[in-house]
Amino acid sequence: MNYIQQRFKVSFEYKVFFTEGLFSSRNPIFNEVLKEDHQENYSKKILFVIDDKIIQHFPDLDKQIDDYFAGNEYVQLIKEKIIVAGGEISKNDGQYLEKVIDAVNRNRIDRHSYIVGIGGGSVLDLTGYAAAISHRGIKVIRIPTTVLSQNDSGVGVKNGVNYKGKKNFLGTFAPPFAVFNDYEFLTTLDDRDWRSGISEAVKVALIKDEGFYQWLEDHAEDLVNRDKSSMEYLIKRCAELHVEHIGGGDPFEFGSSRPLDFGHWSAHKLEQLSNFDVLHGEAVSMGIALDSLYSALAGLLPQEDADKIVRLLLKMGLPVTHELMHLDRIDHPIFLGLQEFREHLGGQLTIMLLKEIGVGYEVHALDLELMMQAAQKLQNFNQSDLKLSAQC
Amino acid sequence: MNYIQQRFKVSFEYKVFFTEGLFSSRNPIFNEVLKEDHQENYSKKILFVIDDKIIQHFPDLDKQIDDYFAGNEYVQLIKEKIIVAGGEISKNDGQYLEKVIDAVNRNRIDRHSYIVGIGGGSVLDLTGYAAAISHRGIKVIRIPTTVLSQNDSGVGVKNGVNYKGKKNFLGTFAPPFAVFNDYEFLTTLDDRDWRSGISEAVKVALIKDEGFYQWLEDHAEDLVNRDKSSMEYLIKRCAELHVEHIGGGDPFEFGSSRPLDFGHWSAHKLEQLSNFDVLHGEAVSMGIALDSLYSALAGLLPQEDADKIVRLLLKMGLPVTHELMHLDRIDHPIFLGLQEFREHLGGQLTIMLLKEIGVGYEVHALDLELMMQAAQKLQNFNQSDLKLSAQC
Repeated sequence: MNYIQQRFKVSFEYKVFFTEGLFSSRNPIFNEVLKEDHQENYSKKILFVIDDKIIQHFPDLDKQIDDYFAGNEYVQLIKEKIIVAGGEISKNDGQYLEKVIDAVNRNRIDRHSYIVGIGGGSVLDLTGYAAAISHRGIKVIRIPTTVLSQNDSGVGVKNGVNYKGKKNFLGTFAPPFAVFNDYEFLTTLDDRDWRSGISEAVKVALIKDEGFYQWLEDHAEDLVNRDKSSMEYLIKRCAELHVEHIGGGDPFEFGSSRPLDFGHWSAHKLEQLSNFDVLHGEAVSMGIALDSLYSALAGLLPQEDADKIVRLLLKMGLPVTHELMHLDRIDHPIFLGLQEFREHLGGQLTIMLLKEIGVGYEVHALDLELMMQAAQKLQNFNQSDLKLSAQC
Repeated sequence: MNYIQQRFKVSFEYKVFFTEGLFSSRNPIFNEVLKEDHQENYSKKILFVIDDKIIQHFPDLDKQIDDYFAGNEYVQLIKEKIIVAGGEISKNDGQYLEKVIDAVNRNRIDRHSYIVGIGGGSVLDLTGYAAAISHRGIKVIRIPTTVLSQNDSGVGVKNGVNYKGKKNFLGTFAPPFAVFNDYEFLTTLDDRDWRSGISEAVKVALIKDEGFYQWLEDHAEDLVNRDKSSMEYLIKRCAELHVEHIGGGDPFEFGSSRPLDFGHWSAHKLEQLSNFDVLHGEAVSMGIALDSLYSALAGLLPQEDADKIVRLLLKMGLPVTHELMHLDRIDHPIFLGLQEFREHLGGQLTIMLLKEIGVGYEVHALDLELMMQAAQKLQNFNQSDLKLSAQC
């Protein structure tokens, strides 16, 4: 055969910082990161895309940013801030993507300049996607403002928006330039957002780190009671496990295995079926509970471990079932999630289950009858737990 | 500072094949490539996106493809072919991008399946972009059908579409899964398309390979007369130089240097200003002529070499100037191309010029007065050459 062989490697690196009061004049971190990336004879621009929920809670943020970058020697701040709706709507409604890209164009943001996203996972996914496709990739800086995005999506390499209701149908793999996890943003989260972010920590502990799982059990109450140092530890450990997994494995997911998606096949579908009334973290909690009980029914995981997991989720104030999760027939809409999950990953269906707490196990088929039993058990579990709670 | 360091490398590889009659039942190459990528227990799909100009010249192509893949053991052919307009319109008009993405969605093409683009550079750029952003990257197979795309864009790692008239404003770096250069597609090109593709070969020879430049001088007449083996050699050598450059350098262009864009800063702008009446290869020819004469005026390149280059382009039947290239004032619209060129690459302005034939030289500023002189010389050059032609 007559051919030319192409072969090369591309190196990527970035840091995930943990800080507080990122835009305080006394906090030098952001500026130091920019200094390190400075190029002689060239002034980079920096454009901010901000979640409108954050603006509500931090009305001074705009001014703080202006003050922080006033007279900055490394970057030229674009004064106009791009405000986008927080939550899944930013990924569902194409106007927000257009809004960011239009701002890149109008403000002549180039590939060596920065786009900074401040917000929850959805706003960061949107911002990252807009940055990745503009000029074939502008540097993106993520400032995640929720528990979920600080410990999970915000530290990874993915971005995306939804298309015709399909989650992340459009997106790319594009490592960020830097990530700043600022604890201060978490202080204004309502309890529902605070708690829902914990489910991804439970997930990563279950498949990777038995010790961390034990720590979560031991600190469940502190976490629910919004103890600062417990949450700081949870976020850092969870981010570490995610970062290690991505860097050590298959960062751009060329294979079919995606262990970090434990509990996610049903979660993504549930989010969509509930019109995103169910938060991602809540859906993941239900997905974890379902796949843990299924793992036990399938003879992989001891039943007592599965029960322990469900109890931990409930103790964390997380839901473990939902009326849309009553899997009572094999053509239940949630089961369509399996097909969509396979399609999004590509290749053979590959689902992560549990063998032990801290040890995952991959399968390539699910027994839907067993899955229905697991869902049924979960409803009962929920009811008996509610009874228990009522008795307390 | 409290941070986690992420660091990883991603490996990419693909082959560029040279063949004839790719979809003939006697040609096993395509099938062998699919066989090598086959996964047990999983049937991949294959979706074709085809340039409407190709369909006009090869009305049997659809049936040939159906026959080639009938009963294939490695892939399941999607019968419906997605036909898109050939030429720049496919990148300018958003409906074509939507058409491809919609087909991916409807036909449930996953990340391990294939999207095959058959067409000129524009259709391949569009197809590659749609594939890159769907499910965070479906495998794309390119079948370039023009001289230009077979020796240049088709073998590289870029894709893109235009946004508000700005060329490739939206796009990504995404290596193809495989490239098939089929000589047969070139046989129906009109002379204008045939010739315009030669300019990228002149370009890469000028900055990288003096020997190849000499070969082009020696074979100019054969090439214009559509000699098959000369064109086959040109395409392979040019593709080799491109592939080597990409793999050996900065494939995803993190830096500001882009030597392969010699002659391109004005070319992209000219294409846009002419509403794409000027073909990319023609615009590149004019850009090469302009920057070669400028290199001489700037004291970098011997004047006789610059003249030799312009004469070669003319001998190849390529244009070296255009009424939109009469740079008679420093606010001439073509000069806006410099700003857009810098913006698209990012960082400091970096323009490749020539020091010798076969040796490039990068500068970070241009003298617009000298550039206007170069443009002026080119007009005279063109007129005297036309006179010469008329005398023959």
